[in-house]
Amino acid sequence: MSVSLIYCSPLWLIANGIRYSHNNHDLSDSKVLYRDNGAIETTLGSKDFNLIKRVGFKYKHESVLEFADVVYHIECSRAVLQELARHRLISLTVKSTRYTLKELKNVELNNEVLEDYLVITGNKNVDELSIMQLNDIVINMKNNTLGSNDIAKYCLPESFKTELQLKTNLRELLNILRLRTSKDSLWEFRQIAYQMFNMLPEDYKELILCDEQIAKQIREIEDENIK
Amino acid sequence: MSVSLIYCSPLWLIANGIRYSHNNHDLSDSKVLYRDNGAIETTLGSKDFNLIKRVGFKYKHESVLEFADVVYHIECSRAVLQELARHRLISLTVKSTRYTLKELKNVELNNEVLEDYLVITGNKNVDELSIMQLNDIVINMKNNTLGSNDIAKYCLPESFKTELQLKTNLRELLNILRLRTSKDSLWEFRQIAYQMFNMLPEDYKELILCDEQIAKQIREIEDENIK
Amino acid sequence: MSVSLIYCSPLWLIANGIRYSHNNHDLSDSKVLYRDNGAIETTLGSKDFNLIKRVGFKYKHESVLEFADVVYHIECSRAVLQELARHRLISLTVKSTRYTLKELKNVELNNEVLEDYLVITGNKNVDELSIMQLNDIVINMKNNTLGSNDIAKYCLPESFKTELQLKTNLRELLNILRLRTSKDSLWEFRQIAYQMFNMLPEDYKELILCDEQIAKQIREIEDENIK
Amino acid sequence: MSVSLIYCSPLWLIANGIRYSHNNHDLSDSKVLYRDNGAIETTLGSKDFNLIKRVGFKYKHESVLEFADVVYHIECSRAVLQELARHRLISLTVKSTRYTLKELKNVELNNEVLEDYLVITGNKNVDELSIMQLNDIVINMKNNTLGSNDIAKYCLPESFKTELQLKTNLRELLNILRLRTSKDSLWEFRQIAYQMFNMLPEDYKELILCDEQIAKQIREIEDENIK
Repeated sequence: MSVSLIYCSPLWLIANGIRYSHNNHDLSDSKVLYRDNGAIETTLGSKDFNLIKRVGFKYKHESVLEFADVVYHIECSRAVLQELARHRLISLTVKSTRYTLKELKNVELNNEVLEDYLVITGNKNVDELSIMQLNDIVINMKNNTLGSNDIAKYCLPESFKTELQLKTNLRELLNILRLRTSKDSLWEFRQIAYQMFNMLPEDYKELILCDEQIAKQIREIEDENIK
Repeated sequence: MSVSLIYCSPLWLIANGIRYSHNNHDLSDSKVLYRDNGAIETTLGSKDFNLIKRVGFKYKHESVLEFADVVYHIECSRAVLQELARHRLISLTVKSTRYTLKELKNVELNNEVLEDYLVITGNKNVDELSIMQLNDIVINMKNNTLGSNDIAKYCLPESFKTELQLKTNLRELLNILRLRTSKDSLWEFRQIAYQMFNMLPEDYKELILCDEQIAKQIREIEDENIK
Repeated sequence: MSVSLIYCSPLWLIANGIRYSHNNHDLSDSKVLYRDNGAIETTLGSKDFNLIKRVGFKYKHESVLEFADVVYHIECSRAVLQELARHRLISLTVKSTRYTLKELKNVELNNEVLEDYLVITGNKNVDELSIMQLNDIVINMKNNTLGSNDIAKYCLPESFKTELQLKTNLRELLNILRLRTSKDSLWEFRQIAYQMFNMLPEDYKELILCDEQIAKQIREIEDENIK
Repeated sequence: MSVSLIYCSPLWLIANGIRYSHNNHDLSDSKVLYRDNGAIETTLGSKDFNLIKRVGFKYKHESVLEFADVVYHIECSRAVLQELARHRLISLTVKSTRYTLKELKNVELNNEVLEDYLVITGNKNVDELSIMQLNDIVINMKNNTLGSNDIAKYCLPESFKTELQLKTNLRELLNILRLRTSKDSLWEFRQIAYQMFNMLPEDYKELILCDEQIAKQIREIEDENIK
């Protein structure tokens, strides 16, 4: 399981959006620099930051939070992919099983190597069953006896790792974090959700922690991780 | 793999919607009967039917097709569920693995019985690997050695069957059918998509076949199924 | 301003959806009758009704509420249409201004007749300004001096009435009712939202009133309307 | 009517997303530089650019185009806002009529000044009716005789200008451009859609012109604008 942040857009876009409905851009204290290639560099002022806190979190006008986007690279089991895909306000590209299965042909038949292709649960029996299954798949792949990849993938275990690029906006990210940092969430997804939070720049984090439920759940995970 | 139609709303809703934008409800030839319990009974007239064909299919104002909904019960592998969940304009409830795993505890260790829990691919090696894996899972379930269900499910094969209720509207159904009745689609999803079409009432089918790409792909599947 | 209910799908679809994730259709006490033309007649049992209350409202798993749809006919000002269209999880067809403007050509120049084309606010000055403007538009329409309808519509007042067919699901309906039956909502939209609630069958109403915020706001409107 | 580009995210995000499903990041020829504040600077290589063209436009896997976002500031009539809000895959904040009406109190009663608050159609009668109406509104605003802003706004003409910040992704932008640069589109929206294209950086433009329908419609507008 691993998460890295590929990209996030400037929070200033949220403050700027709010100021259209309030018609008070003159009060903005952010610095915005347009560079030659069209990219922008922004420094979010404290007034603008507090405006986002007030409108987006205190008054719960969450629609303004849609102006900021985050893009992650995530490595997870197919079990988590199943749950992740149920969030409908995300954009996703996933490593094709076609390519993954091709790789398996050249894999050494060695438990340590095979484990690299799986999410390890910590339950000895579950992990052994996954490794044995993968071992048998690799043997068959080497002998070309599993048919096309669209057939072969039916015997892969849910623990099999996949990789994806995910984009979502800050509003939907809050929804994901509320649901998935909870104790009721699937254990692997809970750690991924925590990392989705943890990888963000400080200003994003400070905003998200304005949500009391998320703040509480994040603290619980951090307490557990320390132990 | 099985599909059944649980519900579909009257196509008259589409014609009625179109007539608001054209302001010509006086031209409608459908019969609509409101019954005591609030339900309605409709008979779609041929003028209204042709109006839907013209506006929704010939002129491609597909948004009007959102007024009709279909609800299915689908039994499929977790491999298909993965792809199904990527369609974002659907509503879905899926049989929880929690309940499915509970059932496995009481399953007889017999290949014929185990096969009932799997989508069989027709490739002997793939199917045997799935059955062996499931057999080992059941043995462990009976001995309570796989931990909680949230852990145990990591060793389930992708061929493991699940059940779901899916709702979508006619516009998104066309999108699903275009993508998933194609030869490039996953074989199991292709048959499911065909059944999603095939289970519909005649008036729905006649409309959908106005889409040339879908009509061609449906014919190809029917030709292959006959052989 | 007027609202009528064109259609709503059986709440049984929600209970049936929930029972897929719980895998306990044997506990359902609803009666479902499939008729020859494919339509279904359902009687929702009290166990199923309570299941929806518990899962959809008490445990707030609102996604299951997406299985039930409602379709309305609404007559409102263009000011409300503006706000209505901001709800993104709805399907909408709106009476085209093209047809509306055509009608104006034949309208009698008489304040009482003109008022029928406008939403009256109760503020004498606002209403007189709208009527005067419409009067001048009709005179110009009769003389063909306003150009094409795509030009002419730029001088229509926001109070000008339009008609539409709107479909949404029960989950988004709750969102609309929470926002739009509130005292902060636009007065005309507030009355429309109240009618959207009021036109529903009793079982829908009983469910919706499980939402405390909506229940409180509905009571406030009913108290005000009595006075 | 005016459009300016506030922000667009790097197209590299699309190429990077595609490379996850193909599993070939080693073929990327873009340069990506993470800076201290978390922002990134990217130079899109020609291989990556051609990959986006091939996958997103030639093979029409449009979902990958969702990884790039654009944010605009738009000034337009309420007539266009009405149509813009019907695109459901956008995020929007709109200048509140509350603030707009407050401004009108202090406006000089002079046609030239009033025209600044309106979108001028070029039809003398339509424009005069809008100006007269606005003139009467301002007089009443100064005398406090139009009630609250939620009442007063009912007599505003559709030509009344508003301002908004709009975010959308490249996939939905293509949909907007296909529909709204067409000759069938509302004239003002057609010019706005053209400017939404025209304000983009060169690499965005080159990609969008891969869509034949948009390319043809853009050429038609440019030909008309030259005359």
